[in-house]
Amino acid sequence: MEKLFIVKIGGSIIDDEKKLAAFLKDFASIKEAKLLIHGGGKLAGKIAEAMGIPQQMVNGRRITNAETLKVVTMVYAGYINKTIVALLQAGNCNAIGICGADGNLIQAHKRNIPSQTAATDNTTDYGFAGDIDVVNGKLLQQFLANKNTVVIAPITHDKNGLLLNTNADTIANEIAKAMAGLYKVSLIYCFEKNAVLADVEDENSGLESIDREDYETLKNKKLVNEGMIPKLDNAFEALRSGVAHVTIGHADNLQMLLQQKSGTAIVND
Amino acid sequence: MEKLFIVKIGGSIIDDEKKLAAFLKDFASIKEAKLLIHGGGKLAGKIAEAMGIPQQMVNGRRITNAETLKVVTMVYAGYINKTIVALLQAGNCNAIGICGADGNLIQAHKRNIPSQTAATDNTTDYGFAGDIDVVNGKLLQQFLANKNTVVIAPITHDKNGLLLNTNADTIANEIAKAMAGLYKVSLIYCFEKNAVLADVEDENSGLESIDREDYETLKNKKLVNEGMIPKLDNAFEALRSGVAHVTIGHADNLQMLLQQKSGTAIVND
Repeated sequence: MEKLFIVKIGGSIIDDEKKLAAFLKDFASIKEAKLLIHGGGKLAGKIAEAMGIPQQMVNGRRITNAETLKVVTMVYAGYINKTIVALLQAGNCNAIGICGADGNLIQAHKRNIPSQTAATDNTTDYGFAGDIDVVNGKLLQQFLANKNTVVIAPITHDKNGLLLNTNADTIANEIAKAMAGLYKVSLIYCFEKNAVLADVEDENSGLESIDREDYETLKNKKLVNEGMIPKLDNAFEALRSGVAHVTIGHADNLQMLLQQKSGTAIVND
Repeated sequence: MEKLFIVKIGGSIIDDEKKLAAFLKDFASIKEAKLLIHGGGKLAGKIAEAMGIPQQMVNGRRITNAETLKVVTMVYAGYINKTIVALLQAGNCNAIGICGADGNLIQAHKRNIPSQTAATDNTTDYGFAGDIDVVNGKLLQQFLANKNTVVIAPITHDKNGLLLNTNADTIANEIAKAMAGLYKVSLIYCFEKNAVLADVEDENSGLESIDREDYETLKNKKLVNEGMIPKLDNAFEALRSGVAHVTIGHADNLQMLLQQKSGTAIVND
């Protein structure tokens, strides 16, 4: 099967013009088929603030009210997505930037508000947050067959005209799963550390690899960063769904990550 | 040759949620291959104002400074483009929204500032305004072959990483010309009047058709609206370049315009 690299970059690199340009130069140099999923960064919050739209965060997650949905659609699918595409085009990488509504790439539904009678304490209304129903892998295959690199913004839709804000890590995972039957997929989560840490308090405790058992042990000892939990949950799920490799590492080391010479390899057992 | 409808909608309809939805319903019902090019509307100006970015207009044209370029990229390629795509998807029209940077669809260059020694009084620096060099018709042909409807935002790029703000009427014209060798192209400019007026002061003076001679006569008598002049110049150029039909009419009458039963037909002689 043909190789496919699926790379996810988060917000911190997007906020740094120079680092983003350096990262995209590395990404553009990938010879194999490739997809890039990007997060949001701080710009949306800044613009919402400048526009006087109140921003509400619960457990580090943005509550997407109607006005904020407009802003994240503008910033993620507009400014960030097209800035990345223009830089990749300048690097002779024939990029096309889309979001989950385009070509019905990612159909989602507005997240339900858990009722208070349900077996959960979380009754947060996340507003216009989208939980993914289905990814249109065939569309991505068409783009790749035409030698296009697809750059995906974390906005989805419900096929009834509603756009939704969706977590970029989850999008990367769902896309990797959808493509796993068609390509030999390597999924690479880039973040601002060199590796998953064995101890969140110790920067030098980077792991070469982590399996499910290691992960459960670290979780029980509360040594895993809060933000890392959904990333790792996603990573293990991707492996179970046929994704060949999942690596988590620093955006500065993309070329090493591609060769599995840097970062933490997520392994099945 | 296969038929292709290229429809351009302007800002006023984009600012009206209900009218936009009605228009898109009509557009989605077109059975033939189709492309939609959209303008900007008033939202970009409102957001720039809310963000404290000074807006400068010269002869009704926006001067695109660096901060305004960010805003128009967000609003045109993000919010407006994705709102249209989501509504078309809801109407079972498999739309994909892109701008001129995506897939190198429209390569442009930053407009030169005419020197004061040149034979023109206009030495306006329009800032990050893009003048089109080349349209990648092959990319659009790929999308159309896959039964996708392409929705195009009026942002282009220079292939060196710079995004540029480009007039949507001109984009529609250049795309129609690029597709003329591949399809039997009908180009439809939608605006807020029923037809081109023989007398700009008389709403009932709509013309069924206009040829180059009529146009020159009206121009000499100063009976043509200022904003109509570049539209008509574009229209005649499109016809000379092999576009089969060019019609200018009201966005409310799209179905009639498609059948050439409404609006003004631009004719060669």
